[in-house]
Amino acid sequence: MNKRGFASDNNSGVHPAILEAFQQVNNGHVVGYGNDCYTEKAIQKFKAIFGDKIDVFFVFNGTGANVLSIATLTNSFNSVLSPSTAHIMVDECGAPEKISGCKLIPIETNNGKITPNDILPYLHGFDFEHHSQPKLISISQVTELGTVYTIDEIKAISNLAHEHGMYVHMDGARIANAAATLNLPFNEFTGKAGVDVLSFGGTKNGMMMGEAVVFFNKELALNTKYYRKQSGQLFSKMRYVAAQFLAYFENDLWKSNALHANNMAKILAENVSKLNITSTQKVDANGVFAIIDDEIRDKLQKEFFFYPWDENTHEVRWMTSFDTKEEDIEKFCSKLKELLNV
Amino acid sequence: MNKRGFASDNNSGVHPAILEAFQQVNNGHVVGYGNDCYTEKAIQKFKAIFGDKIDVFFVFNGTGANVLSIATLTNSFNSVLSPSTAHIMVDECGAPEKISGCKLIPIETNNGKITPNDILPYLHGFDFEHHSQPKLISISQVTELGTVYTIDEIKAISNLAHEHGMYVHMDGARIANAAATLNLPFNEFTGKAGVDVLSFGGTKNGMMMGEAVVFFNKELALNTKYYRKQSGQLFSKMRYVAAQFLAYFENDLWKSNALHANNMAKILAENVSKLNITSTQKVDANGVFAIIDDEIRDKLQKEFFFYPWDENTHEVRWMTSFDTKEEDIEKFCSKLKELLNV
Amino acid sequence: MNKRGFASDNNSGVHPAILEAFQQVNNGHVVGYGNDCYTEKAIQKFKAIFGDKIDVFFVFNGTGANVLSIATLTNSFNSVLSPSTAHIMVDECGAPEKISGCKLIPIETNNGKITPNDILPYLHGFDFEHHSQPKLISISQVTELGTVYTIDEIKAISNLAHEHGMYVHMDGARIANAAATLNLPFNEFTGKAGVDVLSFGGTKNGMMMGEAVVFFNKELALNTKYYRKQSGQLFSKMRYVAAQFLAYFENDLWKSNALHANNMAKILAENVSKLNITSTQKVDANGVFAIIDDEIRDKLQKEFFFYPWDENTHEVRWMTSFDTKEEDIEKFCSKLKELLNV
Amino acid sequence: MNKRGFASDNNSGVHPAILEAFQQVNNGHVVGYGNDCYTEKAIQKFKAIFGDKIDVFFVFNGTGANVLSIATLTNSFNSVLSPSTAHIMVDECGAPEKISGCKLIPIETNNGKITPNDILPYLHGFDFEHHSQPKLISISQVTELGTVYTIDEIKAISNLAHEHGMYVHMDGARIANAAATLNLPFNEFTGKAGVDVLSFGGTKNGMMMGEAVVFFNKELALNTKYYRKQSGQLFSKMRYVAAQFLAYFENDLWKSNALHANNMAKILAENVSKLNITSTQKVDANGVFAIIDDEIRDKLQKEFFFYPWDENTHEVRWMTSFDTKEEDIEKFCSKLKELLNV
Repeated sequence: MNKRGFASDNNSGVHPAILEAFQQVNNGHVVGYGNDCYTEKAIQKFKAIFGDKIDVFFVFNGTGANVLSIATLTNSFNSVLSPSTAHIMVDECGAPEKISGCKLIPIETNNGKITPNDILPYLHGFDFEHHSQPKLISISQVTELGTVYTIDEIKAISNLAHEHGMYVHMDGARIANAAATLNLPFNEFTGKAGVDVLSFGGTKNGMMMGEAVVFFNKELALNTKYYRKQSGQLFSKMRYVAAQFLAYFENDLWKSNALHANNMAKILAENVSKLNITSTQKVDANGVFAIIDDEIRDKLQKEFFFYPWDENTHEVRWMTSFDTKEEDIEKFCSKLKELLNV
Repeated sequence: MNKRGFASDNNSGVHPAILEAFQQVNNGHVVGYGNDCYTEKAIQKFKAIFGDKIDVFFVFNGTGANVLSIATLTNSFNSVLSPSTAHIMVDECGAPEKISGCKLIPIETNNGKITPNDILPYLHGFDFEHHSQPKLISISQVTELGTVYTIDEIKAISNLAHEHGMYVHMDGARIANAAATLNLPFNEFTGKAGVDVLSFGGTKNGMMMGEAVVFFNKELALNTKYYRKQSGQLFSKMRYVAAQFLAYFENDLWKSNALHANNMAKILAENVSKLNITSTQKVDANGVFAIIDDEIRDKLQKEFFFYPWDENTHEVRWMTSFDTKEEDIEKFCSKLKELLNV
Repeated sequence: MNKRGFASDNNSGVHPAILEAFQQVNNGHVVGYGNDCYTEKAIQKFKAIFGDKIDVFFVFNGTGANVLSIATLTNSFNSVLSPSTAHIMVDECGAPEKISGCKLIPIETNNGKITPNDILPYLHGFDFEHHSQPKLISISQVTELGTVYTIDEIKAISNLAHEHGMYVHMDGARIANAAATLNLPFNEFTGKAGVDVLSFGGTKNGMMMGEAVVFFNKELALNTKYYRKQSGQLFSKMRYVAAQFLAYFENDLWKSNALHANNMAKILAENVSKLNITSTQKVDANGVFAIIDDEIRDKLQKEFFFYPWDENTHEVRWMTSFDTKEEDIEKFCSKLKELLNV
Repeated sequence: MNKRGFASDNNSGVHPAILEAFQQVNNGHVVGYGNDCYTEKAIQKFKAIFGDKIDVFFVFNGTGANVLSIATLTNSFNSVLSPSTAHIMVDECGAPEKISGCKLIPIETNNGKITPNDILPYLHGFDFEHHSQPKLISISQVTELGTVYTIDEIKAISNLAHEHGMYVHMDGARIANAAATLNLPFNEFTGKAGVDVLSFGGTKNGMMMGEAVVFFNKELALNTKYYRKQSGQLFSKMRYVAAQFLAYFENDLWKSNALHANNMAKILAENVSKLNITSTQKVDANGVFAIIDDEIRDKLQKEFFFYPWDENTHEVRWMTSFDTKEEDIEKFCSKLKELLNV
């Protein structure tokens, strides 16, 4: 029996509708590497969502999507600015540096979100050959701290970037959760808000694997197909990623999954707050951050999967997902209550 | 209705038993990135096949597997020797060079196989800093020309490599077809024949995606997990690759699939030979190479998928796969006969 | 007539003894790339200074030396920790990332020097494949803020590094100035203090070009010759770098040059302090940092070369060098006094 | 006493006029990194030679120049076509692959020169993402086999390249020798013949170090300054490279040096031919290739420096240079005659 918990939204399985979708495309021969009718259909779906001017590239995973975005929009002498908590900064084992050759510059934040004021001090040294040239600002939506940017916050960053001849990348590993929170169509807070390239993720919200890299101006993506192949992210049997995206958008599966996960996080946050455990971050989406005693944490981990976030501050992270059950939360809080002796 | 053909073994779909396997692991929460019971079980299966001393790493695709093999066993100042027809030479858009920094040195062959005599002229310049240091010999089993190395041929290459402090990589994208041809356990013509690292593929033989990189001496693989992550090949929901491999080995599914594909190629070769079209290569596995008139080729391609191999020599490639039907061959040869007017 | 100033110690010319040295080796044919008697003699001189266990590699410039140090001691999945003001962080256009593939992690400091306490929070995630593995701590001696580490400060860093299986790199672009300040033999605060690799610079102290990369354990440097060639830092007519180092060490030319530069900085700092301009950093070596009004700065720059250090804080940097004259300082301060109207 | 010989034109020293030139610029302070009056003057000299539309970048050495040329004109998914004997292929320890990420494709030749017919078979796979995209043809003038391209041969290659949207790089490590042979201004067989970027070398013809990368269309070179810095090829005290080039062009020093070296090679070839040793290559410039018995070779090497070229064919290479004396040739031939017993 597998142990349930709140470790990560990628510890959950695959939504049955996604598995079902495989059956529907598992039909005879089609040309590989994306030149098939299913992939074409999935691309059209992305265009319906993000507009006709986009170009979209399917890849295997989030690191692949982020690296492809960066490699396409930079040269090796560029720098990428991002919150210090960003996935590209701390969770990709230096893949962006290795593949793009760029310098990644971490910006400190309190809540995983950067503002133009945070960025401005790094916008210097343009045209000065000793200095890695700032070219890309990368933000995560949802952030790694569970917070969500508003449209205006994103526009402010985009405007700043474009004024300096720079681009904006959005790491949308949890973009469905953000869309659910904002209650907005995807394009409103991405392409229309000035984002130049988006890593559109589904794996954390019920898909098996496969992400999409969406360029909002296809002129920027003329070389992307080569970078995708060269970075090992071109899937031969592409129809099986396409099928997942088609199922993911069918009947807004993405939305019901994300709303559920977000709702579970809210319930979890409320329930632990009754135990006097306060969230250290706003619970904008499907992550809850809190400080608990190390000893309690260790005991709790014996029955439920979850990770410490910051050992120094005794902060932990609890992630909910499309398959989190209220029962999971009840058991968890009940055990926590017992341990806290409250 | 999808058009069938002989374009590539990755144009076929996924074997039903593989899709079925997904259901069996789609069960609640497990830790991501390979620390789950299904991945552990799959690893044990690989150890049962290749011995306890191996270390095995699952990745997304063949390019990922080859690059991970190369990156692990070389430094950027090394060179990799390989037949000029190898996948790493011509079909990976320079991924090996980009990721490893190495020089790839192509060796001409007649049949996709290299011998110690072919390799020897390149084994010079050791210790001379102006010269990329030869470190890795990479061979494909089955080769890209459909031929299969014997155990002795592989041993001869391994011995040469090891005498020079070099390693041997085998690109086993079609290793099941080779094993079926040789009628030997996998390990006999890999680890026991001196291969140091193997890209073990399944996608071309009925899996959806996922390859395994097998190191026959785990001491060589101490850094591989970092290279896998940094090259974007670490799958979060790893259980869905593990599940595929478990099903692939269950009841020797790999073998029945491969035997079928190989057998179809034999039948295809025999049938076209009756039309006076002679194979340009030995039909050792599931590929048939032949020379046909361009005009005939163009007409034939309108009804059946397949690719030209060499425009200059009017050579074409016909690949069979686990799902090729005798009926496909009959229709194909019937059309070909009609076009040839014989 | 060239305008003099305090812009950088590389704005000065070459010491006459260095130019003279070229004549002495410009004598017939010798084997290229370092296999000549002059290079051998220079290597022996380095061994006399740093001990027999070292291995030393001459390169063209400081960026080349730093990158060679990093490339030798890391793999691409490693991270390098360094003060955020370090040359490798801000003045090499991302060369370390591009060549080594590593992540560079900047650490904030007040004075360009890091301590074990500054470093400790970054020493986590070992063995965790999502995290760039910390492998190298890089410090500058003299720092980019003109401060100098004591032996004990260096030892504390080395001990911390070695306890974690990490290495220490010292960027010694101004190491002569540090040695003059500390009044210690080079080896006391490098190899004997636990430094693993040193970029030993001379260009900023009277040489024309050429730096030396000193590995204190030659076992670490087995591949360095290849990395040197591959990074474009192998000089064909090596004898002309060797000649410079021989002259540089002859009669302690390095020391008289450095003492002079340091002394000039002291005098400059004293003189500007009389004009109520206080140094923002300790004047440990040959750099003076101060805050002056932008308008004054602009006027002053019309007659003397120097650079702003931080536009936001109105901080400027004044560097002295082996050829700075007391007269330069007098004229400078006289002009400054006039502008300040004091 | 240094042993003289015919090992390489970089075994010779520096021409006295070059050393003298250092004195003339060793005068006070100038801004570093090329923003000085001497560098400006040298740039103007290059424009006088190659036309106003060029952009020129000084670097340290030939590998640096070649790599900078390649890195500027390619993306990592490109391929570079070049004779298999090219310096970038065999003598730079994989620097081009490491820095540019490109695939280098060697083309076999008899004499170091490639023709459009040699190149054509490699011009396929355009727009096909699995295939490294051909982007650059690199030729050496003089070739590594001592042969020289005519204007028409170069134009034929350039035309082919440009028809395919590709560029032409010329490795001009020995361009002075070629110009002397062709008796043509540099620009006639470079820019005017369709070359896009030129590594203009001087080190092998009397300079100490320093090469120039000349782009014939400055639009192509907008990012070159960053690549130069990032590849460690930006010289801080640039005036000392500029001074060398100024002296090199003064009174056509380059020409008298090159004519002398070429003439010495002719004399050497004539003299050994009298000993029944025939050149294996045309003696177009300053290199003589010949086959001699291994035993003779070994004895000869005890008194004169020179290198085997191909151990398998018993071929050796003898290079002359600006400082080769007729006396050197006499002694050498005399010894050879003695050994040959003719």
